[in-house]
Amino acid sequence: MEKEHSIALEIFKDISFSKKEIAFIDSKFSKIHLKKGDILLIPGAYVKNQYYVFSGCLRSYFINAQGKDHTTQFAVNDWWISDYTAFFSGEKSVMNIECLQDAVIYQFSRENMNQLCEKMPKVEIFFRKKMERAFAGFQKRILEYLSQPAKERYLKFISTYPVISKSIRNYHIASYLGITTESLSRIRKSIH
Amino acid sequence: MEKEHSIALEIFKDISFSKKEIAFIDSKFSKIHLKKGDILLIPGAYVKNQYYVFSGCLRSYFINAQGKDHTTQFAVNDWWISDYTAFFSGEKSVMNIECLQDAVIYQFSRENMNQLCEKMPKVEIFFRKKMERAFAGFQKRILEYLSQPAKERYLKFISTYPVISKSIRNYHIASYLGITTESLSRIRKSIH
Repeated sequence: MEKEHSIALEIFKDISFSKKEIAFIDSKFSKIHLKKGDILLIPGAYVKNQYYVFSGCLRSYFINAQGKDHTTQFAVNDWWISDYTAFFSGEKSVMNIECLQDAVIYQFSRENMNQLCEKMPKVEIFFRKKMERAFAGFQKRILEYLSQPAKERYLKFISTYPVISKSIRNYHIASYLGITTESLSRIRKSIH
Repeated sequence: MEKEHSIALEIFKDISFSKKEIAFIDSKFSKIHLKKGDILLIPGAYVKNQYYVFSGCLRSYFINAQGKDHTTQFAVNDWWISDYTAFFSGEKSVMNIECLQDAVIYQFSRENMNQLCEKMPKVEIFFRKKMERAFAGFQKRILEYLSQPAKERYLKFISTYPVISKSIRNYHIASYLGITTESLSRIRKSIH
């Protein structure tokens, strides 16, 4: 019988693999079930893993010295999440990751990632391009934060992430946009 | 006679290449001499190139809708610079790049980068790891901006980039730290 739920085929959609390669890749990912409210990462930990989100919704956030909560990322189907600064640099985490909606995720360690990349140049290319997009996307978001009014950024957020924006709390959206929940309410009233 | 100034050996220090590979890589980079004040990139351009800085100092910056200048990056020897959001996404540039000190840089196009990566997996790995470090570094800087007072960030900046901080104008340092030049002066007075 064919493998019905190969994570290799799910993640690396556009790459062709042999059956042997698929089995090898699948063996490098571990499936995890999370419940809403589960905590995946706290500050001060060594971060050996990144996570591919198959279903559900996760959030990474950072609490600054003044106690303010900054959402760095939401992740739904086909997104990856981790404290990437810690994951790539080997330093301890400064971020939290929590589950906002029951989720199925796949854990993928740094070591397994390196093994896979060394063995399969096509996977290496996939991760290089993914990093390029992640870097470009993150930088773009910062520049938008520096240049656009909150209302514009809110409208962009709900049109870019319709699924996320409908299913999470106002508090999380405000924290992602870098505004207070009061400002978010005002923006919403001004639209409707 | 041996090639004395192979840019391949300069950039990819830790990788071993054959002579043929070195010649191939060198042919993919074009040397450019810049004078202080030269402009390398303006907003609204398609960005086909990234640049490796051999000597001198460059700055990339972004001017927001309110006319405020945000320095995204300085680049001195062994750094890379571009409007990476535009370079990777294919969108038009939003950043400026200017030369702060006479510089020798090497232009490297997206096309040549892809060719080199396809041909040489070891170069692909180099660029993946470089992207990981760039992403981690950039995210770290944003989180520090959100969490640390300006004085702390200034002290970190001058200890991390002693060469840069001594040779550029206050205005540029303030723009990098996201503060006014007046605040920078106050911080400096409070230290000395």
